[in-house]
Amino acid sequence: MAGEAIRPLFRSALLVEAKGDASPVTEADRAAERALRAFLAERFPSHGIMGEEYGTERGDAEYLWVLDPIDGTRAFLTGRPLFGTLIGLLHRGVPVLGLIDQPVTGERWVGVAGEGTRFTSPLGGTARARPCARLAEAELSVTSPDIFDAAQRPGFERVRQAARRVTWGGDCYAYGLVALGLVDAVVEATLKPWDWAALVPVVEGAGGRMTDWQGRALTLDSPGDVVAVGDAALLPEIVGLLAG
Amino acid sequence: MAGEAIRPLFRSALLVEAKGDASPVTEADRAAERALRAFLAERFPSHGIMGEEYGTERGDAEYLWVLDPIDGTRAFLTGRPLFGTLIGLLHRGVPVLGLIDQPVTGERWVGVAGEGTRFTSPLGGTARARPCARLAEAELSVTSPDIFDAAQRPGFERVRQAARRVTWGGDCYAYGLVALGLVDAVVEATLKPWDWAALVPVVEGAGGRMTDWQGRALTLDSPGDVVAVGDAALLPEIVGLLAG
Repeated sequence: MAGEAIRPLFRSALLVEAKGDASPVTEADRAAERALRAFLAERFPSHGIMGEEYGTERGDAEYLWVLDPIDGTRAFLTGRPLFGTLIGLLHRGVPVLGLIDQPVTGERWVGVAGEGTRFTSPLGGTARARPCARLAEAELSVTSPDIFDAAQRPGFERVRQAARRVTWGGDCYAYGLVALGLVDAVVEATLKPWDWAALVPVVEGAGGRMTDWQGRALTLDSPGDVVAVGDAALLPEIVGLLAG
Repeated sequence: MAGEAIRPLFRSALLVEAKGDASPVTEADRAAERALRAFLAERFPSHGIMGEEYGTERGDAEYLWVLDPIDGTRAFLTGRPLFGTLIGLLHRGVPVLGLIDQPVTGERWVGVAGEGTRFTSPLGGTARARPCARLAEAELSVTSPDIFDAAQRPGFERVRQAARRVTWGGDCYAYGLVALGLVDAVVEATLKPWDWAALVPVVEGAGGRMTDWQGRALTLDSPGDVVAVGDAALLPEIVGLLAG
């Protein structure tokens, strides 16, 4: 449903002419979120909905849907098929369902608490995180070196120096790659709930862990500094380096 | 031909188990380069061939093929479909033909000197660079902040600060996005001839320019520091900032 609003704009003449101005994307973002909200409100009238574009309704409901129609706006604007539509569901604040959908390549990750993550893609890959207990052996992925504030930068630099290697870019897609056993760790900062809610069940259903920078479960009150690892054994080393 | 050697490995169990060790990729790289070399040697026995894996044969021939079966090893290893097979052809040192092939998504850019770049992709897009004469309006793309040496970093930082925005990651794919009018500039350093030879005809056939950091044509003797722009009018500002 979101993809129908998003696909026509990808690499379109409208985007080329917009020259980096995000307004056309905001339009697609809003149209996609309206469609998802209308569907959810009809099917689950008692549930709450939180979205990037239209705020929160019934935020104290037992079940809360958390929506980001286009996660990775810059990837979308520059024509990289690594952005994603994120749909998360929290039960009393705990992520119980997450979906990452890449509407251009046709890839989709679905995570459900207590079940194995399912992945369908014409490009291949299997939803199973891989063992990697030491940062010195880990592939680290980070969307941009610019997402950390001055207080966070030293901790991130310690992790980066200790990691085997770092690849840049990716947004939600990088967390999907953790779930495929191709990336071992992602460390990012100041994500909003709609950036991370869908990712937790995808990563954890594939055998990984996703927490805040202190190694605690993410909550709606978290500042949104996150760590995702394919192997829970890697978490203490990262949390230790972030703390200093 | 290269894709047949590369596709089976993408996101394979073998790569997951290799945990970031590039050896399986090197195997695929070599198999792909052997296949391309055998084909070219049979079809064009008088031409030279330069490849990342097997060196140079007949390097002083009038026509020199320049091959990189997998440009973007880290993207490949981490499962991102943004690496590419690069095939360039130099005539007396001048790039006259270039091909970027993404064997997983099925995207292909073909540039021929004096002709418009052709682009075929199931994901959409049109091979035409866009006007953008000022860095303050430009989308800059860079594979990694770590590719610059200490002497180059201040120049790159000036460009980065002056650009509207920067997106990270991409390797050869980012140059393809310049040719699609979605990225305005790429600034990178210490590329090998097999990293850039195929890109010049693709970028220039779409209306852009690709030079060294002084704004001069790239040659086999260049140190491999490159600038690609969608709009030639953007080049003096970037060259000036790089020089300091």
